[in-house]
Amino acid sequence: MEYETPLFFHVMQYAARADRDVVGMVSGNPDWEPPEALRDGLHEYADLDSAQFQYPPSEGLRGLREEIAARRGVDTNQVVVTNGAGEANYLAMARALERDRGDEVLLTDPVYPYYPGKTSMLGGTQSFVAADDDGQLDPDDVREAASEDTAAIVVNSPNNPTGAVYPEETMRELVAIAEASDAILISDEVYDHFDLSGQFASALTADSENRIVTNAFSKSMAITGFRVGYAVFPPGLVDDARSRHMLVNVAGSRPAQYAVLQALDETGPEYYHRNRDLLADRVATFTDALDDAGAAYTTPQGGFYVLARFDGYPGTLENVEQLIDEAGVAGMPGEAFGDSRREWIRFALVTPRVETAADRLASYFG
Amino acid sequence: MEYETPLFFHVMQYAARADRDVVGMVSGNPDWEPPEALRDGLHEYADLDSAQFQYPPSEGLRGLREEIAARRGVDTNQVVVTNGAGEANYLAMARALERDRGDEVLLTDPVYPYYPGKTSMLGGTQSFVAADDDGQLDPDDVREAASEDTAAIVVNSPNNPTGAVYPEETMRELVAIAEASDAILISDEVYDHFDLSGQFASALTADSENRIVTNAFSKSMAITGFRVGYAVFPPGLVDDARSRHMLVNVAGSRPAQYAVLQALDETGPEYYHRNRDLLADRVATFTDALDDAGAAYTTPQGGFYVLARFDGYPGTLENVEQLIDEAGVAGMPGEAFGDSRREWIRFALVTPRVETAADRLASYFG
Repeated sequence: MEYETPLFFHVMQYAARADRDVVGMVSGNPDWEPPEALRDGLHEYADLDSAQFQYPPSEGLRGLREEIAARRGVDTNQVVVTNGAGEANYLAMARALERDRGDEVLLTDPVYPYYPGKTSMLGGTQSFVAADDDGQLDPDDVREAASEDTAAIVVNSPNNPTGAVYPEETMRELVAIAEASDAILISDEVYDHFDLSGQFASALTADSENRIVTNAFSKSMAITGFRVGYAVFPPGLVDDARSRHMLVNVAGSRPAQYAVLQALDETGPEYYHRNRDLLADRVATFTDALDDAGAAYTTPQGGFYVLARFDGYPGTLENVEQLIDEAGVAGMPGEAFGDSRREWIRFALVTPRVETAADRLASYFG
Repeated sequence: MEYETPLFFHVMQYAARADRDVVGMVSGNPDWEPPEALRDGLHEYADLDSAQFQYPPSEGLRGLREEIAARRGVDTNQVVVTNGAGEANYLAMARALERDRGDEVLLTDPVYPYYPGKTSMLGGTQSFVAADDDGQLDPDDVREAASEDTAAIVVNSPNNPTGAVYPEETMRELVAIAEASDAILISDEVYDHFDLSGQFASALTADSENRIVTNAFSKSMAITGFRVGYAVFPPGLVDDARSRHMLVNVAGSRPAQYAVLQALDETGPEYYHRNRDLLADRVATFTDALDDAGAAYTTPQGGFYVLARFDGYPGTLENVEQLIDEAGVAGMPGEAFGDSRREWIRFALVTPRVETAADRLASYFG
């Protein structure tokens, strides 16, 4: 069996080997500081009794699950702490496919490439529902695509790569569609702290046995390498998900969970607001330059990314490599995200050099 | 789909709720100190630039993979760093089953219960080859059991629960059997630092495209909660295993990998010898008491465990609970490890109170 390996690594390696200075806008690694309490938590953990270095509960440290549950308004038993959002989505999709109510996974086009990759690995089949030019998903399109064979509908808001934030009405309708077709709506909300529109709605707002929400601290705390995420399962699905988690990973890494819990407890909202505002500033800087470059783009409502299209310069891997060599800016080929954005290039705004990149693009295309 | 959930958690909870003092000998959590350099590494990591808090390479920190490869005498590209031995075994078994050369996984009886659990989860079927009274596996029995339908042969030496250490000749024959039946030998060597017999042989001694070796730092560095393990794949199987690892977990937790690498670099052999000698002392203490109690037992050649059988007191869950309540010693029911050890109870020697437990058992049964 072959899996679709994301193009990310290829492009990042190409940029790293370039002969010139390159502003990296490929990966979604935050470039700002983690909460100070996270570093403190790691120091504190390092000096604990060695008994604290042994297996945490498989489903995650109790205090961490309680804190997540309190913040999300769910029962602690519904929360499984995972090895990042990556494992959370894997567990959710596996659970949906194991219900034996169909093999099809409904995805969006454009799509975050790990979702089709996971679908193939789990033996499911992929179908795609097109998002509109702004990245919004029309629930009617999803309803039409859903069938008896639909096991899961996987969505992501704020969206990677489009930057769309789905309104509450869309989330409610998606949950209703999952219920009507006896499928599972899987809502990946890992960019929820980076809603620039003020209209973000979690799928948790609609209580349902047909809905799994996944998330992580990777982006919100700028710790993609710690691998601490979680999934909120309906009561009827959580036991099997916990079993799979145990059989795959036994448990997540305890030092990382400990530090995240400390950071959750001690970090005020200003930390999250500051990073969101920083991102909003970068969006303004970058889209101004895209205007100067005569590019088409979607202004993100949230998340880390801007999709841009330059006239006569489609977002192929070849052009992305040329842009690295000639303009010194590395983005992601739109083709990585499905057919509909082949003309586009995705730029991640998680670099302090957004302004430099913007200037380079404006002068290269302007 | 239902998974087999190990009995471990049930017994540990029962012991924790008991009205009396109980010596816990259920789980395989080392009770000794991790290497000092591991704590230092975690402190050092906590103060690194925040760029070091982002995704490590999916297959693990380069330095860690190089160090593992050098110690195991393999190519760095064959090494995938995993979320503990748990994920390493999962990746190995998934890879074996995905080759479409059969659905059967050959396991031993007695067996570490995660192996049949993973087999079911991955859609494989289980067959068991009986180990002898000392826990040794006769390669002829494995050869007879292996067939066209055999995808994998999973062994563990030093063995949990029997304490057997397979001689080099057995490992070589198992590799040859895997080759002859176009199956994959999966050799879980997580207790390799606790060989008390001096005859431990890694499956890596026989070079083969049909052999995967799994391991972890969980036991050797007394950090079961850090979740840092690895698998060594043959060149022809490593790419797909890396893909699955990426699609399930993206990457392992970076602070834990960093600390382990530091500890590997700076910890001399005396650390490992000291813990192994401590375990040898405990084996002597505990088996002396079993003699006093009139119990049958196997003297472990390696690993953390002693299997014991008390006359007229089979190792059922009921009896194990009674032993907790009446003797104040918690072991694992033999039935957790398969049919052949239903009469037996497994005691983990990773507690400083081995002597107390030994006295209690001697006086309860003596």
